[in-house]
This record gives sequence, structure tokens and C-alpha cells, in this order.
Amino acid sequence: MQLTLDGDVVRADSRARERFYDSRGYGRVRDGDLDLAPVEAAHLCYRGDIDAVDGMDTRELLASGAVSAVDFLVYKDLRDRGFYLTPAREGWVDEPGGVDFVVYPRGQGPWDDAVAYRVRVVGERDDVPAAALGDCALAVVDEESELTYLDTNTRTVEGTSAADVPGVRGELLAERVLCWDPPAPLYRRAFYGQRLDEDAVQLSLVEAAYLAREGVLSVDGGEPSDAKRPSSARSADGGADAIAERGRDVEGDRFDRRLRVYAALRDAGVVPKTGFKFGADFRTYADVESVDDLGHSELLVRVLPADHAFEPRDLALDVRLAHGVRKTMVFALVDDGIEWVQVERLTP
Amino acid sequence: MQLTLDGDVVRADSRARERFYDSRGYGRVRDGDLDLAPVEAAHLCYRGDIDAVDGMDTRELLASGAVSAVDFLVYKDLRDRGFYLTPAREGWVDEPGGVDFVVYPRGQGPWDDAVAYRVRVVGERDDVPAAALGDCALAVVDEESELTYLDTNTRTVEGTSAADVPGVRGELLAERVLCWDPPAPLYRRAFYGQRLDEDAVQLSLVEAAYLAREGVLSVDGGEPSDAKRPSSARSADGGADAIAERGRDVEGDRFDRRLRVYAALRDAGVVPKTGFKFGADFRTYADVESVDDLGHSELLVRVLPADHAFEPRDLALDVRLAHGVRKTMVFALVDDGIEWVQVERLTP
Repeated sequence: MQLTLDGDVVRADSRARERFYDSRGYGRVRDGDLDLAPVEAAHLCYRGDIDAVDGMDTRELLASGAVSAVDFLVYKDLRDRGFYLTPAREGWVDEPGGVDFVVYPRGQGPWDDAVAYRVRVVGERDDVPAAALGDCALAVVDEESELTYLDTNTRTVEGTSAADVPGVRGELLAERVLCWDPPAPLYRRAFYGQRLDEDAVQLSLVEAAYLAREGVLSVDGGEPSDAKRPSSARSADGGADAIAERGRDVEGDRFDRRLRVYAALRDAGVVPKTGFKFGADFRTYADVESVDDLGHSELLVRVLPADHAFEPRDLALDVRLAHGVRKTMVFALVDDGIEWVQVERLTP
Repeated sequence: MQLTLDGDVVRADSRARERFYDSRGYGRVRDGDLDLAPVEAAHLCYRGDIDAVDGMDTRELLASGAVSAVDFLVYKDLRDRGFYLTPAREGWVDEPGGVDFVVYPRGQGPWDDAVAYRVRVVGERDDVPAAALGDCALAVVDEESELTYLDTNTRTVEGTSAADVPGVRGELLAERVLCWDPPAPLYRRAFYGQRLDEDAVQLSLVEAAYLAREGVLSVDGGEPSDAKRPSSARSADGGADAIAERGRDVEGDRFDRRLRVYAALRDAGVVPKTGFKFGADFRTYADVESVDDLGHSELLVRVLPADHAFEPRDLALDVRLAHGVRKTMVFALVDDGIEWVQVERLTP
């Protein structure tokens, strides 16, 4: 069987089309003949279905660089798992952007309409732009050629937590606000802060900045609100600026990003608490009625600028840890708005 | 009871010495009287044992900055856990350098010789120089004022893994070396690489660079050794330079650091494999006789330059993950030599 490499396409005849496309989903039909991507031809070589492409066997295709090793490893793995898949080239699949392979549900192929996974192939040392995440699966090939699949999806975050908190006064210390004799709902119902003891609650700077902006907290001579305020009635006072300035002093721009994400979570009915013990910005509780009945926190949230580029190893670390503590890893990507991207381990 | 703040020491009389030092281990005796650190005086105030220091109660001591909130929180927590402890000041304790509190075993105090923990207090946002780790416990106060204790100790790493590998040829691809029909011991006994299938083993660049330097592997026209070589007989040939150069191309200086740590582990009888799935550089097996009987890997190793400064959150993430997968987190700090520092969660 004659296969010739023509630029980045391997041309084959109608007999090859019958054997490889019609029955096993390799390549793309062109005028009754078959076009194969080099990675597909290398896989056919590897299986012994064809002997060579332009005189090159699998070994030579890889050694020459005509076929990338990471692409080949992922292609082979997905075939080994029983999937048919098509290289994501313009004209070969719908919406080829941002991914390398379109994978069909088991038992289906390029002649069907369904898609199981859109797969982006990544080497362990390749940066992954945050904008590339969502609606694709990453197939990460590590330095020892082992594969890790990560499913990435955009999502919303919402909950039913909502508690009015009466006005409270606090003292701004270096990196926290201390409230002596605060109203009980502050901690017990709304789950702000951490108790020093029965008589005092410590707020983080981000909690304090949010509460001051909401007109609930007053520090350093700002006026406390002495009535419940709906969360839409924002006050510029109460020390909100002083707290945010302190936050920027100790965290830089990161503080504003975290405050925006914190506020978005609270406004969506979700209670964010520190994720420090999990190496994240926040862990979240979707349905808090009382701290006596908290339940399990559902998400770990890491706040990042939208133009962040991930190292795959950092992604693997976050996702592995979240999985181990039965939470879901969510990245809050902050630009003009906030995009929430969930990343989970995937076994195709 | 009269207590006066004199610079950074609170002076108290002999009656205070009897009440607070003799029976409860606060402060340091000076000429029969008592010196207290402000954090100790603040704690006595907080407990109601004294009313004020120079007219200031706990709240005012904290608000004025006379006592740091993070120091106070850690001091209080350790007292709550039943420990006596002494601020690590010159002349107050032996070797005060690098730590904030010297903590005595439960039931003992400053009049005894034993030390349970040497504690360094760290705010979540403080950098921790790698050189500060080892022989101390970190008490990290996170933004919500919760405490995480991390025990840090220098250690050695050693094992019994040792297997001779006959000479092998490989092909250098972009970020890996592919060995077709390699000798069986390469993978099965010595646990180098990852099998593509029965007939091929893929080596990482760091594995390949080590094997080439050992004279076992030859790539790209380097001469393969066709006899077993003891690991002391180094060869500069076999493509070692080409592989290391490729490593530097894709990883920069990090490659040389990782190669040194890889070699130190192999030379110590420990098999390092990629730690990618755990977000680390290596996971290690101390006693490999055959890949058919591998057992559990014991350590996760992260390679860092010795002048690295940790963010406490990254430390918390690594240690939490390692604990979750029943491994021990070890940092390999690379300078002229390699220092191994183990970090584990601690519940005092």
C-alpha cells in the first residue's frame, strides 16, 4: 500500500480509505481517497497495518520529528482505550481551535455527530494559558511519558447562604481586624471571621474590606451602621479604603483580585473561607445557615489574573489535592469580569 | 500589681516572679524580680491575671502594636495546649537564632533542660527563606488567624536499590529518549523509564543524562558501553552533553539542579521517578528489586535552589498533599551540596 507524505498530510488511496477510515475511523475522506495526519499514519505503522510512510517506519517518523512524540503518545493511549479520534485540523472537524484531537464516544466515529472529548495535548513543560481552559480536556504528557488527563469546564458558582449582620466595630491591626464583643450573627450565622474566644472575632483583611464596603463594619473612626443594611446599599465609608489599602500593602494587586472574587462569592450566596490549609485562596460553603451545622466545603478556589499561564505541574498539584480532600478545584480568572473554570481529573 | 513597659521588656517585682514564673513559667528572672516579654504580659492581661501594663489592657497592647497579633495568637495557642514557653531572646534561652519561642515538654518549664519545639512564627504572607528550615517548627498564622504547625528537619536519604544495567542505545527526541529493544534490566530491575510497549522504553531527559554520564546509555552516535560498568566509572561521552544541553533548553538551570538531585538519589540507592502527578519533581522508592514488586513510594521531593524563599501557602500545599498520599515531603536544597529538609504537619 502506497502512502506518501505531502506537506503535513499523508495521501492514501480508496483501498486505504475502506480499511482505515470506513472501518476504523482513521483520517479524512477526500474525493473517495484518504488523507491521514502523520500521527495517524505513524499509529498505523506502529500497529503493523502499514509498513512505512515514504520509507519511514514509526521509529523514523518520531526520530525525524515528522510526528511529535507527545501527540503520538496521546493518540496511541486514546486508541488503546478504545476511542476513535480525529486530529483537530481546519476542515477536518468542527471548531478545531485550541485542541489537538476530537475524540468520539466509544463505538462512534467521525461519521457520527457526537463528541466525547476535545483534547489539547500538553507537554509537562509547556505553559497552558488560562484562556485555553474550559470546554476541553488536557492530556498532559509528563517527562517520563506518563499521561494525566484533566477535564476543564467553565461553570457558575451559587448557593443559598444569606444572613443579615448588624453593624459592628473593629480595630485594624497589621493584617487582620479584631472585633471585641461583636453581634453574634457575625460569626455564628454569617460565618465571618474566626473566634479568638467567646468575646472576640478576628476578621481577615478581605472579609473586613467586604463588610466595610457593605456598610456593616466600621473601623478606625469610620461610622458603624447601627441597622441591618441590604447588601446593595454600599457605603464608601467605615474604613473600607483604609482596609483595602492595608491589603494592597501586604499583597499588592492580588488583594483587589481576591476581594473581587470574595465579593462575587458572597453575592452569589456562597461563603468563602480561607483555603490556606489546602494551598488555595478560598474554600467555599454553598449553604450556610449556622456554623454549628456547617457540613463539608465544596470548592477550592484559586484566584488568578485572566492572563495567567499555568505550569501543568501546578495544575496537577491543585487538582490532585482537591480530589484528595473531596472538593472541586475552581480557578477564578479575573479580568473585567470573573470566569470560573473547574478542573478535575479525568479517566477517559 | 505594678507592671511597667521598659523598652521591649515589662518589669515586674518578686511577687510577680513567684506567681508567674515560679508556678507557671512566664518570663525570666532578673535579680529576684521578673522580666516579661510584652507578649507574655499581654497573655497575663488576657487571662485576667493582671489588669494592665502601663495602663494598657490586651486590646490596647495589640492595637498599639506593642504586641504583634501573630505572636500573641501562637503564644496563646501553645498555652491553651498546655505548654510553657519562653520568647527566644538573647540571654533568655540557648540559641535564640531563627525562632520566636522555645517550647518545653508538657509538665516542664524554663527551669528544666528539655526542649519540645523551637517555634518560628510566620504570617501567611511572610516569605520563609529555605535556610530557615530544619530543626524548627513553623507556626503559620493564616489570614483568618487559624494556625498550622509544620515541623522541619534536615535528614538523609538512602536506600538499597542497586541494579547493573548493560549498555543501551537510544534516540534523542524533543524531550525524551526512546530505546527500542532495550536490555530487560533497564526497566524491570533498575526501573529506568516507562515502557511504550514490550519492545520500547522511554527515558526522561534527566534519566537519560544520568545514564549517559554513567556510561550506560549512548545516543546520537555516542559509543554504547557493551559491558556492565560500575557506577563510579563515569564517561563523558555517550551523548551526555547533548542530552543535558537539551534539558537546559527546555528547563533552564532547573535541569542541572534536578540532574544533581537525581544523581544523588540514585547514588544513595534510592530510585527517583517523576513526581508530576503529585506536583513534585520526584517520588522515590528506597528498595527496588523489581518493578513487579515495587511497593509504595516513600518520599515526594521538590528540588529548589538553596536561596529559595517559600511562600507559606506553597509549603502548606505540598505538605498537605504529601500527607494525603501517605508520603513525606522533602525539599532538596541545592547549592554547592544538597541539603535535604523534611517538612511535616505537626500537632503540638
